[in-house]
Amino acid sequence: MANHPIRAVIWGENRHEQVEPSVAERYPDGMHGAIAKGAGEWLGDKAVITTHTLDEPEHGLTSDVLDETDVLVWWGHAAHGDVSDEVVDRVHRHVLAGMGLVVLHSGHWSKIFTKLMGTTCTLRWRSEHDRELVWTVNPQHPIARGIPNPIVIPEQEMYGEYFDVPTPDELVFISGFTGGEVFRSGMTYRRGFGRIFYFSPGDQDFPVYHHPDVNHVIANGIEWARPDRERETPTLLRYDKDDFFNGQGYRGAFER
Amino acid sequence: MANHPIRAVIWGENRHEQVEPSVAERYPDGMHGAIAKGAGEWLGDKAVITTHTLDEPEHGLTSDVLDETDVLVWWGHAAHGDVSDEVVDRVHRHVLAGMGLVVLHSGHWSKIFTKLMGTTCTLRWRSEHDRELVWTVNPQHPIARGIPNPIVIPEQEMYGEYFDVPTPDELVFISGFTGGEVFRSGMTYRRGFGRIFYFSPGDQDFPVYHHPDVNHVIANGIEWARPDRERETPTLLRYDKDDFFNGQGYRGAFER
Amino acid sequence: MANHPIRAVIWGENRHEQVEPSVAERYPDGMHGAIAKGAGEWLGDKAVITTHTLDEPEHGLTSDVLDETDVLVWWGHAAHGDVSDEVVDRVHRHVLAGMGLVVLHSGHWSKIFTKLMGTTCTLRWRSEHDRELVWTVNPQHPIARGIPNPIVIPEQEMYGEYFDVPTPDELVFISGFTGGEVFRSGMTYRRGFGRIFYFSPGDQDFPVYHHPDVNHVIANGIEWARPDRERETPTLLRYDKDDFFNGQGYRGAFER
Amino acid sequence: MANHPIRAVIWGENRHEQVEPSVAERYPDGMHGAIAKGAGEWLGDKAVITTHTLDEPEHGLTSDVLDETDVLVWWGHAAHGDVSDEVVDRVHRHVLAGMGLVVLHSGHWSKIFTKLMGTTCTLRWRSEHDRELVWTVNPQHPIARGIPNPIVIPEQEMYGEYFDVPTPDELVFISGFTGGEVFRSGMTYRRGFGRIFYFSPGDQDFPVYHHPDVNHVIANGIEWARPDRERETPTLLRYDKDDFFNGQGYRGAFER
Repeated sequence: MANHPIRAVIWGENRHEQVEPSVAERYPDGMHGAIAKGAGEWLGDKAVITTHTLDEPEHGLTSDVLDETDVLVWWGHAAHGDVSDEVVDRVHRHVLAGMGLVVLHSGHWSKIFTKLMGTTCTLRWRSEHDRELVWTVNPQHPIARGIPNPIVIPEQEMYGEYFDVPTPDELVFISGFTGGEVFRSGMTYRRGFGRIFYFSPGDQDFPVYHHPDVNHVIANGIEWARPDRERETPTLLRYDKDDFFNGQGYRGAFER
Repeated sequence: MANHPIRAVIWGENRHEQVEPSVAERYPDGMHGAIAKGAGEWLGDKAVITTHTLDEPEHGLTSDVLDETDVLVWWGHAAHGDVSDEVVDRVHRHVLAGMGLVVLHSGHWSKIFTKLMGTTCTLRWRSEHDRELVWTVNPQHPIARGIPNPIVIPEQEMYGEYFDVPTPDELVFISGFTGGEVFRSGMTYRRGFGRIFYFSPGDQDFPVYHHPDVNHVIANGIEWARPDRERETPTLLRYDKDDFFNGQGYRGAFER
Repeated sequence: MANHPIRAVIWGENRHEQVEPSVAERYPDGMHGAIAKGAGEWLGDKAVITTHTLDEPEHGLTSDVLDETDVLVWWGHAAHGDVSDEVVDRVHRHVLAGMGLVVLHSGHWSKIFTKLMGTTCTLRWRSEHDRELVWTVNPQHPIARGIPNPIVIPEQEMYGEYFDVPTPDELVFISGFTGGEVFRSGMTYRRGFGRIFYFSPGDQDFPVYHHPDVNHVIANGIEWARPDRERETPTLLRYDKDDFFNGQGYRGAFER
Repeated sequence: MANHPIRAVIWGENRHEQVEPSVAERYPDGMHGAIAKGAGEWLGDKAVITTHTLDEPEHGLTSDVLDETDVLVWWGHAAHGDVSDEVVDRVHRHVLAGMGLVVLHSGHWSKIFTKLMGTTCTLRWRSEHDRELVWTVNPQHPIARGIPNPIVIPEQEMYGEYFDVPTPDELVFISGFTGGEVFRSGMTYRRGFGRIFYFSPGDQDFPVYHHPDVNHVIANGIEWARPDRERETPTLLRYDKDDFFNGQGYRGAFER
């Protein structure tokens, strides 16, 4: 494993903060700023955290930036459609080649998450001040380390099942809401050589990203999603019999 | 698949019904009787259902009975310790050889379930009239067929996480309770050649086994757990090279 | 479950058969024809099987056809790029809404499979007359019913790990090849409301689709992938508190 | 996570080494000694490794020893029956309370592994100098870090499917043998608060525990299985409504 600190990028859409005064007041440094600060406090010198937002050129996610990113954290909601397909394809390639990805809350409907999942990623919801309790169902998982069972979030948007995503590799958290709804709120996926963690708590209308336990989970997720290996794209190769290590490039269906 | 109707046995501990008048009133035919009637209505002529209880000789689970049982449904609570180890070992062998097993509610702490799981099967609980909502998180699963999302159970004992069981093969239902607790309430496991379904709703103190949706799930579980093959115990065998079908018995570590 | 026979469509690319005389000789009715015949013999009157191919208008996969298809079986190889994105999107929507999908062999690199998986779906390969043994590792699975352990395929293309796909919901078969390579050759996935089965044996250069055990697995896969429910697209809806059954349409991030 | 080095105990049955001169010659320090040395070289000062064997009092696995053990590595074969049930129960409790467990090769049939799995743990086998190739199917897993794909083991006992164990939490390695058999050779399980890794390569009749890649996997397994939390037994507790953190002990079915 690399010895350098984890290079984490918190990507924020940063639109609600510009349009809604209440959100700007709740998150004066943007939600991305709150996450960078909150998760950063848990990670300390284990990570170097930077932020990028939608309105930067190429959304701040140039090839140079991604090459130097170990784990990308994604928050988006109102402007999923404004994210360019080219940047989404680039992020997709980096995840398959090993970059970690942490997708938060309404990022469930982002282009990058739905592309990686292959499903609609729809759910049921209500924004009515439900209390959310986040229960640990996989206490041995590194992401659950040090997390109280449950996390108590006094007010939060409700996300409920059926959440149309693939069966997760690991189900870490399940949330229960005042209204009785439940939600698989912490799930891991492996895609290509990359590790993906989806975590649903967090919203523009509630101060969830100031909650220390929520930031602790995000920090654990960043640690967990860190790649162990050099970035490498899975490639279709031909191997001679008894040669297991020197694959040859594929030249097409009729050229063998 | 066999063409005969599923031969299902509903096994009930039948102790609360004898000791507590309120339970006897709620379940005049025993909980096993209520389940047999309720699930039977959904299964119709797809199944032949009988019942057995703890106080019968060998708890009604003789070798002859188990040989003729496709799916065994298990309810126990107050008297897990009174079930003989010999009968438990016998049921265990039959499950590993292919018999289906549906474990209900407080059966989570039965000898047969803990033996199959290998864990403590502990949980958090409270019997205080919580409403339970049973949410489907795997709508493609045969056990979820025709089940409303959610099932609404007006009053029920609370079972909550962390439920100390192995990661299920399939998570079908998650329950949410009035108090905000959540529980993985419908889970499948494959052990040996047998299929196991654990379903938590159901209690002696509430009329849950008169709830049509609950009985529908139990009926679906019985259908799903039905074996596809002849009963056969997995056996350690030696195979010569290039002979894939004629294994020989193992004669010990120093005899090869 | 519907009482009508399963309406299965075998979709074949049908290019090798036109271009390579050896393939045309091996599969005079096309590979799609061989599969339709072979799987059909196992299914008998449980299914009505039709075939469609790439060169038909809309590749034969119009909305009308898909509306009347319970399970779509997909074989493609040389011309994945010729399949129109519009048809792929249509098939994708039908799978998420509940249509079953069985993807065969080189279909691992088809547009529809990679879109559903979200990964590169690359692998290692060699076409050098390896013997393939298909081992059952999930003998309780309906797709393994009646299948010998192992299936012996005398000559076959080698597909080997690492196969870059998501962790399957269920791993049913693993293949071993003469050269010592292994491959997860039978896997299930649930996406949206649809069931997907990937099965790797089968090739244009070997008579694999005339092998009765291979066709038996495909037949079992068709049965397993059959939908239990009406076709329905998962949809993001808002629910009022204490109303679990009447969701309302989402009108956008700033309209609540 | 604790800052001290991982306290790993390699437990060896140490019977073949005493009875069979060829084994004693192959493993002059016992297989446990070879594993301790080989895995120790990969772990360096990340771990402190000790060994214990069957013929010590309490097999060397007293409560004091287990209290100070982070990860227990288990090798047994000829004398599973000589391991006392009391010690097995003690190890079982420690695993459920968080101690890591790495089970090697013929340990698949040990009392502790079968108790944790709940199944027969039978398989097919042959000891005829097959070459074993160990393929990585989960390259993102920490246990696969730095491991070549495949590991080439020139001579080895064959273990083949069907291996009667529960579906693993994670399938990391699949082996292929000269004879064409395959085996799920690296699998993880979570039970209670403990992490379990089963790894099949290794045998008394072949010098497998002198193979650096095999020892690398065992070293990675020890790192992965290390507990993150204080040892604690999952316990059934009652919780009042709105009190999520102060559970009360269970006093029996009729005392509420």
